[in-house]
Amino acid sequence: MAAWARAVRGLLLDISGVLYDSGGEGGGVPIAGSAEAVRRIKASGLKLQFCTNETQATREKFVKKLQGLGFDISVAEVTAPAPAACRLLKERGLRPHLLVHDDLVPEFADIDKTNPNCVVIGDAAENFSYANLNEAFRVLIGLEKPVLISLGKGRYYKETDGLKLDVGAYMKALEYACDVEAEVVGKPAKAFFESALAEMGVPPEQAIMIGDDIVSDVGGAQQCGMRAVQVRTGKYRSGCSGAVQVPKEPNLSWDADSSAAGCIAAHTGSSEVALQGAVLEQAHVCARSKSRVSAAWG
Amino acid sequence: MAAWARAVRGLLLDISGVLYDSGGEGGGVPIAGSAEAVRRIKASGLKLQFCTNETQATREKFVKKLQGLGFDISVAEVTAPAPAACRLLKERGLRPHLLVHDDLVPEFADIDKTNPNCVVIGDAAENFSYANLNEAFRVLIGLEKPVLISLGKGRYYKETDGLKLDVGAYMKALEYACDVEAEVVGKPAKAFFESALAEMGVPPEQAIMIGDDIVSDVGGAQQCGMRAVQVRTGKYRSGCSGAVQVPKEPNLSWDADSSAAGCIAAHTGSSEVALQGAVLEQAHVCARSKSRVSAAWG
Repeated sequence: MAAWARAVRGLLLDISGVLYDSGGEGGGVPIAGSAEAVRRIKASGLKLQFCTNETQATREKFVKKLQGLGFDISVAEVTAPAPAACRLLKERGLRPHLLVHDDLVPEFADIDKTNPNCVVIGDAAENFSYANLNEAFRVLIGLEKPVLISLGKGRYYKETDGLKLDVGAYMKALEYACDVEAEVVGKPAKAFFESALAEMGVPPEQAIMIGDDIVSDVGGAQQCGMRAVQVRTGKYRSGCSGAVQVPKEPNLSWDADSSAAGCIAAHTGSSEVALQGAVLEQAHVCARSKSRVSAAWG
Repeated sequence: MAAWARAVRGLLLDISGVLYDSGGEGGGVPIAGSAEAVRRIKASGLKLQFCTNETQATREKFVKKLQGLGFDISVAEVTAPAPAACRLLKERGLRPHLLVHDDLVPEFADIDKTNPNCVVIGDAAENFSYANLNEAFRVLIGLEKPVLISLGKGRYYKETDGLKLDVGAYMKALEYACDVEAEVVGKPAKAFFESALAEMGVPPEQAIMIGDDIVSDVGGAQQCGMRAVQVRTGKYRSGCSGAVQVPKEPNLSWDADSSAAGCIAAHTGSSEVALQGAVLEQAHVCARSKSRVSAAWG
């Protein structure tokens, strides 16, 4: 086993597409084995932090939904973009016009929103209407120096009824219309991963990020000095990774029907070393990138 | 007067933002002097073709609206993206999923739309809903080789009640989500300007394009070998041109309250030469780009 693997002390877990598929009447469906996997990871003694770009609800509401789906998770264990954005807005004296999901608005309760001098865009879902997009555009184009803050830059995600455009697509629309570049809060921003690692108290070289998004999860974590695993659940689509620029191939890819976390957990007891070994031994390394993966993991 | 100016034989006129501002109950409001300008240009003996990216209605319906607003205009004088797109679809055996305005759909009446193998996007206005964008995205991402055809790539335009996002913004959203580059039919595509020039029977070096969009009108026409004038009506906003890449500065900019066409027409009788002189003499050349403009016109 590689030396670094023995040093792994913490996991960052994406949620949507890794632990469950969102959408539908109950708010989502767990991916087989993932609730059990979270329990096993915690029992193994590894540190665990959930690192999500979820912006369709407050952390409180989101965590309550996940608990209802059977997950052992608490608000403090979740690193999400909205609280990070609020810190940034306060630091820089920015007053946002919000283009976000109704359920996310309470996260910005103590932020001054009068006479906006920036736009904050999240995964607004049904709030991505023609009228709302025009309104956000007019605020931006009316500013002497437009500031656009985007809660993530995902291209799309999978819900129970199919793929949906994510915030990144609408971010690009506003960027193009106003000739600005958005500031991304959330994955793949380096500062966001760093705050998640700080919550765990684990340095990047001792942590693994597990996610389904090649850019936000894999690329972002690698930029931050972590190793990254791309799961083949959620939005994962065969052959799609190649078209997108990330620093390196995913360090590992899972070829399992169930969640990556499940894959890890299924091969561990309470032994941290055994779990780390499972990461290397049980994962299915993409054949086409084997040499590069080896190098990356050397 | 420059030698080239004596050779000008035709004008291409953008419509929205140059002749009228769209929107509102009557469908739009003419820009002062523009209807009279069209009459004078026609009386002067100059060739005239309207070159628009309008895709919120069929050409027939659009022309009828403009006639109702007092313009001397016929369907044959209008070069628009939808008929050009239909030619392209037929040539390549493409069956579109349409994300366009309801009123544009009849332009595609004789196009096979079963089992789509491409997406055509126009200025769909209210049809740019979250559900419709997701639907177009799913068609595209489901294709082995996604083909996205965009009727123009404008960033925004001005209606009577304010600025609105144009098709280009939504095109960018789908491009990003699907990692594809759209094929643009309409301005600034070279083939589109060439077909407008062919309608007039005037070569590019003997024609001037007049429009309010620095990329679609000015940049596109210049790429095609024409000279271009940017009006300061419509979407024109001071200081915005500099941020956008076009081959050259606009050859001229108007600093008038009324339309550029009105500006031309106000200084001409029936003499073609006098009109061409007016283009040079009455236009207000942007001070900041005087040298480059001189060179371009030399």
